[in-house]
Amino acid sequence: MTIEIGLLLFPDVQQLDLTGPYEVLAGLPCARMHLVAAQTGPVRASTGLTLLATTDFGTCPQLDIICVPGGGGVNALLRDPAVLDFLRRQAPGARYVTSVCTGALVLGAAGLLRGKRATTHWNAHHLLSPLGAIPVQARVVQDGNLFTGGGVTAGIDFALALVAEIAGPAAAQAIQLGLEYAPAPPFDSGSPETAPPDILAAVRAKTAATRQAREALVAEVAAG
Amino acid sequence: MTIEIGLLLFPDVQQLDLTGPYEVLAGLPCARMHLVAAQTGPVRASTGLTLLATTDFGTCPQLDIICVPGGGGVNALLRDPAVLDFLRRQAPGARYVTSVCTGALVLGAAGLLRGKRATTHWNAHHLLSPLGAIPVQARVVQDGNLFTGGGVTAGIDFALALVAEIAGPAAAQAIQLGLEYAPAPPFDSGSPETAPPDILAAVRAKTAATRQAREALVAEVAAG
Repeated sequence: MTIEIGLLLFPDVQQLDLTGPYEVLAGLPCARMHLVAAQTGPVRASTGLTLLATTDFGTCPQLDIICVPGGGGVNALLRDPAVLDFLRRQAPGARYVTSVCTGALVLGAAGLLRGKRATTHWNAHHLLSPLGAIPVQARVVQDGNLFTGGGVTAGIDFALALVAEIAGPAAAQAIQLGLEYAPAPPFDSGSPETAPPDILAAVRAKTAATRQAREALVAEVAAG
Repeated sequence: MTIEIGLLLFPDVQQLDLTGPYEVLAGLPCARMHLVAAQTGPVRASTGLTLLATTDFGTCPQLDIICVPGGGGVNALLRDPAVLDFLRRQAPGARYVTSVCTGALVLGAAGLLRGKRATTHWNAHHLLSPLGAIPVQARVVQDGNLFTGGGVTAGIDFALALVAEIAGPAAAQAIQLGLEYAPAPPFDSGSPETAPPDILAAVRAKTAATRQAREALVAEVAAG
């Protein structure tokens, strides 16, 4: 039986939010992968990498797994009726509704996080509550058929957890071995808790404008 | 000063070999990213994900960093004069010559690993010696200006190490924090040493045909 897997693709997506889980989920037996966008064709990620959307909101089949990645482009989606309508239309028929990184905010804006435990990028975690979610500090959070992953690279861990749920631990372990996923970061700076304080301050300063714009948008969405 | 960074793009590339390091290296100050292929335009990765090549072998500027990712499509490159000539032409002027996963075999076929310490995907590690390299069992190996990474996800660790080399540890730590790279794999199956024996046997069996074809090609290349 085919498993229809669709990842949302949009301008200024953080491409690794999408490409990490894509690589893992494509290893599921019978996976059929889709990149879903407003229209088919090239879409430019925040770093310039350009990916081809394979289907659009109107022609995308009912998905078994919907995954919304994050990135700077998320801000424009939070009040985009075409995106939010697509997610609201697909979600009831999907086996799993999922996000990576700030993709969770888009699910939230579509009303799909209300009363649910969820996570997102550390730099946006305070925006889960205003969208009705129950924020959980974890790399991968499952609440029923909702799976949310933390920032960017958490998408790999999230996808392995989802594969294990769908096809069993052996399937996830085989994919992990194929991807030689025995991570060995050269530094211990991957979370606000472990990063040197000056590094954390610098990253927060650099992302301040995007974060403030996002806070204002989320406040608008929360106010209806 | 601009840093020209080019990743080789080819049909049936393992896209995460490319997209992982791309996301990290794009965080280098003054990075200008290129996807280099035989011709510009769409190129399909092994899982169907389609990326757009931004430049071709003839028009690509001299690169400061060359990175060759791996994947099933590597087999076709091992005797492809256009690819090997491109690498031989670029390498002497590059600050860093690098690979992820089985991309190392392409560097080897171009004669760029002779007498150098290098690594590759665990399932191809035995092919480094016939190509003149000194095989090292490690996730990231540096020998002078040659950086090689292990399989697929090792590309993220490799790229952080390269950023630290070029721009200092603080730059790498800031990128790591932005990518929330505090990995937490749900299983410990990422290397042949830690994977359950039956999982290792299954992955080796599934990849036997590609591996055998690759062994024959490397033997031909080694024979001149």
